[in-house]
Amino acid sequence: MNFMEKLTRIWAKNNSLVCVGLDPDLTKLPKCVRDIKNPIFEFNKAIIDNTCDHVCCYKPQISFYEGQCAEEDLAMTMAYLRSRCPEVPVILDAKRGDIGNTTKMYAVEAFERYGADAVTVNPYMGMDAIKPFLDYADKGVVVLCRTSNAGAKEIQELKLENGMELYKHVASLIAGPWNLHGNNMLVAGATYPEELGEIRKIVGKTPLLVPGIGAQGGDLAGVLKYGLTEEKTGLVINSSRGIIYASSEEDFAQKAGAETIKLKEAINALR
Amino acid sequence: MNFMEKLTRIWAKNNSLVCVGLDPDLTKLPKCVRDIKNPIFEFNKAIIDNTCDHVCCYKPQISFYEGQCAEEDLAMTMAYLRSRCPEVPVILDAKRGDIGNTTKMYAVEAFERYGADAVTVNPYMGMDAIKPFLDYADKGVVVLCRTSNAGAKEIQELKLENGMELYKHVASLIAGPWNLHGNNMLVAGATYPEELGEIRKIVGKTPLLVPGIGAQGGDLAGVLKYGLTEEKTGLVINSSRGIIYASSEEDFAQKAGAETIKLKEAINALR
Repeated sequence: MNFMEKLTRIWAKNNSLVCVGLDPDLTKLPKCVRDIKNPIFEFNKAIIDNTCDHVCCYKPQISFYEGQCAEEDLAMTMAYLRSRCPEVPVILDAKRGDIGNTTKMYAVEAFERYGADAVTVNPYMGMDAIKPFLDYADKGVVVLCRTSNAGAKEIQELKLENGMELYKHVASLIAGPWNLHGNNMLVAGATYPEELGEIRKIVGKTPLLVPGIGAQGGDLAGVLKYGLTEEKTGLVINSSRGIIYASSEEDFAQKAGAETIKLKEAINALR
Repeated sequence: MNFMEKLTRIWAKNNSLVCVGLDPDLTKLPKCVRDIKNPIFEFNKAIIDNTCDHVCCYKPQISFYEGQCAEEDLAMTMAYLRSRCPEVPVILDAKRGDIGNTTKMYAVEAFERYGADAVTVNPYMGMDAIKPFLDYADKGVVVLCRTSNAGAKEIQELKLENGMELYKHVASLIAGPWNLHGNNMLVAGATYPEELGEIRKIVGKTPLLVPGIGAQGGDLAGVLKYGLTEEKTGLVINSSRGIIYASSEEDFAQKAGAETIKLKEAINALR
């Protein structure tokens, strides 16, 4: 089953547009997991067990594993996800992109070493820099378009000669000529809901990965108003810190589960 | 000593603008190292021993380590470089960039886990996405501007409202408001020497990291004609495959040394 089929099925099965970001920072983990072996994996495992019936995706941010020498915990987490909830796709958030022979190695990392269903990539170097990812026809490729950070506008909102902002041009590439196998998605931040609407007009039904809900203060009602497709799907709405650090006590995983359900229901009430 | 001082000293001491890219692909390593323990590290070590008096930089491309589960070999290589040739700066080629708390983890990876002197980053998300790197005031930050791949023009040559190409605007940011501690560099590919001249006009003495010589077929004479500063420096000219795979036999490291000297002299003849 390819990435887009997998995503479409889980949207329906779990009736959820929620993605949980697995971005574990050792200094923020509850005391009860901090001192055991592979604390990052054990933390993730507990979060997964308590959320997997209420999500459409998981999104581990690879920097948290690389910055904490925790490649093993990431591999264990990916393997656990495959056995515990094989129907839930996993987007490895890595924002890669480089010349061909280098990107090939990044594609091996994402899809073969870690077995991700999709990976986030950066469009600045053009299509050939993400082609080795696209060549995995069944895998998803999630390209940055309009990111959720304040500084994003410095580059992404630059107006081109024809009056169009750069991010809109990038959106048309991602959903158009770059969408070789129909498994592309775009990153469009929740902190700019109107722009999300502009993107939706350009990309049709192409799904959007929407970070920025929760800790980053994005506007959920705006996201749904402007971002949903006619089918009331088309969105993968990520929350990381708002869910995984819902409690810093022993009940952290139960609280993460409760926050996930709360977000799922808040979204569904607005659909 | 900060990154720029370190680079300026080694340009003079080794009389070289050559950077050797340490991008070891296990399938291409000579038979004599392929079956020993930590083959990637042993390969790098031999290359380093035979080239370190003739370079101004090393540039390990992190994808080759991540794609081959070789984080240990990368750490060993970085430690070896620090003891064998501490005066030669090391640029970790990672092309990172993400929202603040994520980039912080990438900065820890590059500067603390691996002890790099500089790191390559992607400008698409704006300055706040690279700020955690810039906050290490002594470290170098090498920002993508005009990359060497054919598809680069798809985004980087887009004309802005004022008629200026995007890469020129990015150049002015990298050398201007983003250059918080004077340790910034830009990536400008050898495959587009005239554009390198345009960039030089915009960035003054800010050094350029120039990939694309060797396997990618860049034009060395053009690079020097358009890229040098008035001081006849300002360039870090990278070759990876052309040097590290100069021979696939037991003499691979000697041949890599000979190729490095050849490239250094070819460059110096044109300075």
